[in-house]
Parts: sequence; C-alpha cells; structure tokens
Amino acid sequence: MNFHYPNGKKFIQKASPANKKTAAQKVSYSNRGMTLEEDINETNQYYLANGVAVIHKKPTPVQIVDVHYPQRSAAVIKEAYFKQPSTTDYNGLYKGRYIDFEAKETRNKTSFPLQNLHSHQIQHMKQVDEQDGIAFILIRFSMTEEIFFMKFIELYKYWQRMNQGGRKSIKKEEIEADGVKISLGFHPRIDYLKTVHSLYF
Amino acid sequence: MNFHYPNGKKFIQKASPANKKTAAQKVSYSNRGMTLEEDINETNQYYLANGVAVIHKKPTPVQIVDVHYPQRSAAVIKEAYFKQPSTTDYNGLYKGRYIDFEAKETRNKTSFPLQNLHSHQIQHMKQVDEQDGIAFILIRFSMTEEIFFMKFIELYKYWQRMNQGGRKSIKKEEIEADGVKISLGFHPRIDYLKTVHSLYF
Repeated sequence: MNFHYPNGKKFIQKASPANKKTAAQKVSYSNRGMTLEEDINETNQYYLANGVAVIHKKPTPVQIVDVHYPQRSAAVIKEAYFKQPSTTDYNGLYKGRYIDFEAKETRNKTSFPLQNLHSHQIQHMKQVDEQDGIAFILIRFSMTEEIFFMKFIELYKYWQRMNQGGRKSIKKEEIEADGVKISLGFHPRIDYLKTVHSLYF
Repeated sequence: MNFHYPNGKKFIQKASPANKKTAAQKVSYSNRGMTLEEDINETNQYYLANGVAVIHKKPTPVQIVDVHYPQRSAAVIKEAYFKQPSTTDYNGLYKGRYIDFEAKETRNKTSFPLQNLHSHQIQHMKQVDEQDGIAFILIRFSMTEEIFFMKFIELYKYWQRMNQGGRKSIKKEEIEADGVKISLGFHPRIDYLKTVHSLYF
C-alpha cells in the first residue's frame, strides 16, 4: 500500500513476511520492482544475520486517536494520523560506532531535489554529526538505478547553499563528485557499510 | 490513553505537546503522576537541547491496514494493529558511543518480573552488546519510586537463569547488588547518562 503524505512525501508500507518472500524471489530475475526501502531492509537483515551490524528502520510514527477492543481479539486502531518523523528512518550500530541515515529516491535524472528532506531531519543529522556519529544519506536515481552515498557534511553544504538563496537541488555531477557510488550486489543488495568502512574506519 | 497489549504489555500514548506542558507544571509539585516514559522523554529532550546526547524513543510499531483520504484534509488511518516491537524502545548516541535501552516499571515491591521483557528484546540487546554498543535496562519500582540501571550483561545472567529453569524474576536485592540506583533529579529527571559515563567511559 503506497500513498503520499499531505506534504507529498511517499509512504511505503513495510513489506509483510509474505511480501518479502515475493521480493526475494524477484531478486533472481531483476532488480526492477524492488523499492529502495525493501533493498535496504534486506541489506540490514543480511548484516544482522551475519553479525556485521545492528541497523533497523524506525517504525512510521503514528498519532493514535481511537482504539477499539473487540472481545477475544487484538485491539484495533480505528483512528490515527501520520506524524512527521523527527529523526531519520534508519539507525543502529556498526563496530561500536553509531550509524544514522536517510534513504531517498528520485525519478529526476539530473539532480536530487532537496525538498525530499525535511529541516528536522537535517537538524537531527547535524546533532548526530556533532556527537561523533556517522550520518549520511543514500540517494537512488530510480531511472538509472544508481545509488550514491553522501556524508552528511557534504549534504549540509548543499542544504546551506539552498538556505542562502541558491538552487533547491543537488546536481547529479555534484553528487558524483562529493558522494560515492554504491554498486548493487546480490546479497547484500546495497552494501553501504563497505562505503562506511572505507570512509570512517 | 493507556491500554494493554494482548500480551498484557502496557501501551502508553506519547504525550502531546499540551500534555507535556501539564507534565512540566506537575514537576514543581511532585513526581507522582509522571510515568517513566514521560520522565525519560523529558530527560532525552534535556540531553538534546544541551548537546549532551541524541537519544530518541522509537515510535510504537503499527501495522496499517486501511487508510482513507478525505478531501482537503490529512490521510486518516481507519484500521491498524499494534505490532510487537523487534528492538528496544530507546536508542541513540552519546560521545560517539551507541546507546540502546529498554525502560520498565513494576508495581511489585520485592522483585522485577522478567515477563516484562520479550525474548526478541533480549536478543536485540545481545546483538548490540556484541557490536560493542552500550545496552542496558532501566527498572522503576513504582511503589517506592526507585529507579535502577542494570547493564545488559547483568540482566542476561538472570534471563539465562530463568531459561535454565530458575526463578522468573530478579530479586530486588540482586538488582541493588548488580545494578546502580539512579537518584531522581529536577532537570534532567532521570540522569541515566551519568551512570553510563561512570560505567563505560
């Protein structure tokens, strides 16, 4: 189930175990049809199962208003609303270091629009960076299926350029120059910790 | 709005900004009426505002089944269910180190029942411990308003004792011996990072 938040942000329901199986079957044929979130979740499961890292996606924040209690069955939430996340979607631990990142896709071919990020997410990554955590963003250009890793400090440069009246996006050339391209693998799908390792360890 | 999960676990709705104000006003009179979660959230806000640490509570995981889109207003979730969390409730970063913990209250006066924890939470803290993260539990005895800090490795000892057929709870004397009592403060309310600092830094 996919839909958009009032602010235009895409919501993607977490894959259920049944969906995951389908997704895993798809892998052998083609990458097409896998969302960035599914790829990252699969990668994180691989890391966890192999004792590489402990990284999880945070649940979608929801404001619960009304809950019913049918007899002999689980509580049903009858009214709730999506809340703006106050942090990034993913965080965890790799070799004792704190890892924190956001993953975003764009169908744009030549640049990454910064409206994909919220100011509180930038603020959160800045706080993480100041506490000596490892903060970054994964950007997927869905038309070409390219994924780039960009350190928060590089991203923040472009965020500040926008706030000073500059362009509201990062050019793909800039991402290529300041980021690191991640090659897609089979297992794990998106081995972003390889890049983390080479940049921070 | 408080209720219990089908497994008997208490659900506590996150305080809204309006509730928080009320809670803050209460502080000047008495600690009674503040939940452990509210105290920890307030403590984490203090840490964040003062650049001490970046620690957040994870949102309550919800499986969304049905969403309506009324015209000219926000999407409404009309059917959803509570999911078992697969990790602990709190995680974040302090001086570059990864912090991960669970907070539990008991009305029991002489022991802490281990049924307050789920095996996947223990599994998660074990993974964190193995990756050199700082994993622990905060236990509040609500009748006496005492709060104890216990390292995961100590907790795990008692968890294993239970799994080997031993008692299903940790005696308060054991908690006093293996844990660290945290004195309640005004601001922050529960300065658990003071204990983290003395034990791990």
